[in-house]
Amino acid sequence: MIIIKSPLEMRRWADQKRATNNTIGLVPTMGALHRGHMSLVEAAVRENDMAVASIFVNPTQFAPHEDFDHYPRTFEKDCELLKEAGVACVYAPTAGEMYSQDFSTWVDVELVSEGLCGGSRPHFFRGVATVVMKLFHATKPQRAYFGQKDAQQCAVIRRMVRDMDMGIDIVEMPIVREADGLAMSSRNAYLTDDDRERALCLSRALFAVGERLRQGEREAAVMLESVREAMREVEIDYVVLADADTMQPVSRVEGRVVLAVAALLPTARLIDNIIYDPTENTVS
Amino acid sequence: MIIIKSPLEMRRWADQKRATNNTIGLVPTMGALHRGHMSLVEAAVRENDMAVASIFVNPTQFAPHEDFDHYPRTFEKDCELLKEAGVACVYAPTAGEMYSQDFSTWVDVELVSEGLCGGSRPHFFRGVATVVMKLFHATKPQRAYFGQKDAQQCAVIRRMVRDMDMGIDIVEMPIVREADGLAMSSRNAYLTDDDRERALCLSRALFAVGERLRQGEREAAVMLESVREAMREVEIDYVVLADADTMQPVSRVEGRVVLAVAALLPTARLIDNIIYDPTENTVS
Repeated sequence: MIIIKSPLEMRRWADQKRATNNTIGLVPTMGALHRGHMSLVEAAVRENDMAVASIFVNPTQFAPHEDFDHYPRTFEKDCELLKEAGVACVYAPTAGEMYSQDFSTWVDVELVSEGLCGGSRPHFFRGVATVVMKLFHATKPQRAYFGQKDAQQCAVIRRMVRDMDMGIDIVEMPIVREADGLAMSSRNAYLTDDDRERALCLSRALFAVGERLRQGEREAAVMLESVREAMREVEIDYVVLADADTMQPVSRVEGRVVLAVAALLPTARLIDNIIYDPTENTVS
Repeated sequence: MIIIKSPLEMRRWADQKRATNNTIGLVPTMGALHRGHMSLVEAAVRENDMAVASIFVNPTQFAPHEDFDHYPRTFEKDCELLKEAGVACVYAPTAGEMYSQDFSTWVDVELVSEGLCGGSRPHFFRGVATVVMKLFHATKPQRAYFGQKDAQQCAVIRRMVRDMDMGIDIVEMPIVREADGLAMSSRNAYLTDDDRERALCLSRALFAVGERLRQGEREAAVMLESVREAMREVEIDYVVLADADTMQPVSRVEGRVVLAVAALLPTARLIDNIIYDPTENTVS
């Protein structure tokens, strides 16, 4: 497994692999890898000749008051896990290589970026779209793997790839959960035992509504009310039922929808969601 | 010569050429080709295995009051010229293929886009950067050719390619002029005889200052004043001396600079410029 630190070297590696007819699958990460990430990595290794994982804690998607400085960094352990999983290349650029002093180009995905996490974190998706575009250019993948836990991020990246004619297949993998239902997240490491316990109300609330969706409930208002009630012991950031492609709130379930929640616990901001597909009557 | 109309087909063609180790050179145009464009095309044919010319009058770089509807369109004649010149592929997507109803992704290049044409045409460079990014993704060139006449556009695209890790070589070709000095432009077709005559003051003003630069003049104020004086018979949009990379106005010549002018003639808005390199003492 090779570790590459500069965009130029990364492009050269990718060009050479593409020129010899290898397919490339990219898993973009901020490191601090957990089983959620590893499920993406395993899919990338399985479905491509070369799997690339990027590890980059992207400063432009954090607001000044957020946890950029304290975000968990476990680079050596991450590399061991990736090597064991069969990854061919780790792309770990430095912030200086990614953002020159006079960096001035930004990618904005309108509409899909607004509301939900985009409402609470106004520059978040501009930072995400910009860095993912850069990672795509450097690693030249045919496929890129994202976790459904960041449902709005998946929608933003899909829209960007479609609008910008990038021809990259965006593979969205299911949320990986702890035995008690908590969605895996690098930020779970921040939680005290007490917050860890209270955090369970997010997935419990979502699972209960998932059951009601399967039984035919279609009205947003009643479902949102029941999620809010189930989350009464935490500070709610948002509870939204939205179209799964556009991320625009809906009042009734008519197509594929995402029920997405965010909560501000004392030690971490957590997000979780379920996606309901009415044509299959499935919750994922 | 093949003519391709959809981004998907274009990507397939480019992937196939790249997979068989052909280099691709792109000349992005809005058609209505003149000798300026053809100098780019000739360079692209000479320097790459496959030359691609795109023809797309991009609606997102025109403001509602501008000349999108009347912009000259000479597709058949353009294709004949490109075929004769040895172009392998014309990429001529439809507006519907380029911009879906719910298109929502935009590329902004800050700083370099501000002032000059970006000051007079506020959304112009957002439209340019977005469409050029899309053209690059569809045609996958190693090199792309732009004319110095659009000096700020060259700076914006260079910055975008650098910031976004695109690894495309941006080749800037000299301005091609009529015998009397008028810079070639598709919009020259709009000019009445009277405006055509008055338009000569732009290049005359620039050439005179070019001579003063070569003789050692370094103060912006005196040069800008003399350009304004020489252009007194036309309505000036801007006269600016700027750093040739950042497009930020300078008060003294210290590095490579562009002296750029824009004028609003009754029948057309025209732009022109010269670039001065103090290390070589050359004007281009």
